[in-house]
Amino acid sequence: MTTPSFSVYGLATPLLRPGDDVATHLLSSVERSPARNFEAGDVVVVAESALATAEGRVVKLGDIEPSAKALRLAEEYHMDPRHAEVVLRESDRIVGGIPGFLLCMKNGTLLPNAGIDASNAPEGSLVLLPLDPDASAARIRAAIAERSGADVAVIVVDSRTHAMRLGCSGVAIGCSGIPSVIDERGKKDLFGRELEVTKRAVADCIASAAELVMGEAGECVPAAVVRGIGLPVGDYAGVATIDASECLFMGVALHADPSLLVKGDRES
Amino acid sequence: MTTPSFSVYGLATPLLRPGDDVATHLLSSVERSPARNFEAGDVVVVAESALATAEGRVVKLGDIEPSAKALRLAEEYHMDPRHAEVVLRESDRIVGGIPGFLLCMKNGTLLPNAGIDASNAPEGSLVLLPLDPDASAARIRAAIAERSGADVAVIVVDSRTHAMRLGCSGVAIGCSGIPSVIDERGKKDLFGRELEVTKRAVADCIASAAELVMGEAGECVPAAVVRGIGLPVGDYAGVATIDASECLFMGVALHADPSLLVKGDRES
Repeated sequence: MTTPSFSVYGLATPLLRPGDDVATHLLSSVERSPARNFEAGDVVVVAESALATAEGRVVKLGDIEPSAKALRLAEEYHMDPRHAEVVLRESDRIVGGIPGFLLCMKNGTLLPNAGIDASNAPEGSLVLLPLDPDASAARIRAAIAERSGADVAVIVVDSRTHAMRLGCSGVAIGCSGIPSVIDERGKKDLFGRELEVTKRAVADCIASAAELVMGEAGECVPAAVVRGIGLPVGDYAGVATIDASECLFMGVALHADPSLLVKGDRES
Repeated sequence: MTTPSFSVYGLATPLLRPGDDVATHLLSSVERSPARNFEAGDVVVVAESALATAEGRVVKLGDIEPSAKALRLAEEYHMDPRHAEVVLRESDRIVGGIPGFLLCMKNGTLLPNAGIDASNAPEGSLVLLPLDPDASAARIRAAIAERSGADVAVIVVDSRTHAMRLGCSGVAIGCSGIPSVIDERGKKDLFGRELEVTKRAVADCIASAAELVMGEAGECVPAAVVRGIGLPVGDYAGVATIDASECLFMGVALHADPSLLVKGDRES
């Protein structure tokens, strides 16, 4: 019996700068890595901050004029008002906050400070999220196919916290070439019955695997290649999202039922 | 320059049954896998459902008498009242729900149906979470060390949904031998400044990597070995948790500020 297995290789690059071509750096980096080259079926993972920097998605704090709302949020949540202003501009909706962070809805996902991070940004600047991570992933995928001949998939990833978890893990924010979520409806469990939970967030799992080699600090390992994962590579595009009304966690905020608090009181 | 890399190997076993010794199955499985044996520094990942079954944490629905509260919750959230009763018993607190699922707090984490799943349980039964996943991880770690001489780490994992993400990814619910979260405080970013987000949930990332080979369906791959990850193996115990008051997502439920809803209305 053969059991599934795969490998993850970090891809080191020079510090990326606005205007850099990401695919060029990846193609050069993979040659210096133990992966040697890109192969058909590989999943190439790129950190959103490096990608956004290369795409010129950098704003200077000195150029930002905070609005009245940004000033109010900044005071309430102890933030730089210019930072709060950029978060406001980049969000579809603000749904809450804790000191230092606003919780935002953006493109159907929930994320702190609209994904805007001062880490790994030049002094006095903020790096925004890539404008269209799915399009970026598709572009890099096409460039790798054209220049190396390898039919790879590309995922753009961010490092994020999750509800009631300490620390960050990987999340896919852009995807091209593999399904981001695999629906196992119809598959049977160990006892031959239909599975209850049928959706596997494979792109998020790959993002977290890649986080283990990419690191958050100044290591200049902004990408990784995942080999042997056995997913079908083809014309899949985008990261599947969930509606807030179907989300159990948003349900806490949107449909909280105080009578359900069976032990103790709500913390406040 | 060497960049980091690692490999993940699935470990296949026969269907585990109450009373089975998990370490025995893992030691036998690894010999049949491409990993060949356990090596010092390996992280061994075990699915909570297989572990809980081996530990006899299986309840028969026919033996359950639903309480009045369980009957009410079952009606409101369209569940089997006996299933709702078991979820109530296994939760520290119920904080909300959507049809089919109650959102529970248990041991400082937030999870649907208290982690109780009818999938991969014998007909008419439910598999509970392992009673003490950290202790289970430590026991398996000690057994592997004693019988193979290899100083490995062990993580017990569950497959869970996250806020506003479609599909399940891996989460560590028990850990022995590596730190579950690595604090990078003091590390510098690409521009030499202190990192803003400093905690990496490495155990969750490893859990998600392992999910990619373990599968949810009847594949009988309830474990994996992660090799080359480069984490320090030693006397670390437990999964670090976060207090609800520090959690940005719980902040939405606990400190929601309707005046912050800058675009559109709350869904309801």
